[in-house]
Amino acid sequence: MATVRVYVTLKPALLDSAGRTVAASLKKLGFGEVEDVRIGKQIELQMDDFDEARVKAMCDRLLANPVIEDYRYEVVA
Amino acid sequence: MATVRVYVTLKPALLDSAGRTVAASLKKLGFGEVEDVRIGKQIELQMDDFDEARVKAMCDRLLANPVIEDYRYEVVA
Repeated sequence: MATVRVYVTLKPALLDSAGRTVAASLKKLGFGEVEDVRIGKQIELQMDDFDEARVKAMCDRLLANPVIEDYRYEVVA
Repeated sequence: MATVRVYVTLKPALLDSAGRTVAASLKKLGFGEVEDVRIGKQIELQMDDFDEARVKAMCDRLLANPVIEDYRYEVVA
């Protein structure tokens, strides 16, 4: 059994409005040292075996939208 | 300037219905090797300086709901 974490993030060129809102809230709470916030997803997969080509296929077909999102992944166990 | 990534995940005891749905969709697409999926958030912070106590305070006060979520963080740059 393998645990794979896929991280899906909005492409840097795109405005992350949820991130902007969180950044503004942090500033209001007194965390003025925060310059910018971007929010993405962590998708943790429990798989029989890690197979890089299969994980890439999952990302391209379902987990990420390649038009607006980037992804990376790591095997954690 | 420091880049800090905070990962917020649902506590393991709680049902992750979005994750269940993604797992079912992956199986339907032919990825039968996926046993379970859990979905969390990645929150990337650009800060003036990394200060562990401040990041923990942000997590406890805004970024995570400690009743139902766990968090971890890493400094990436």
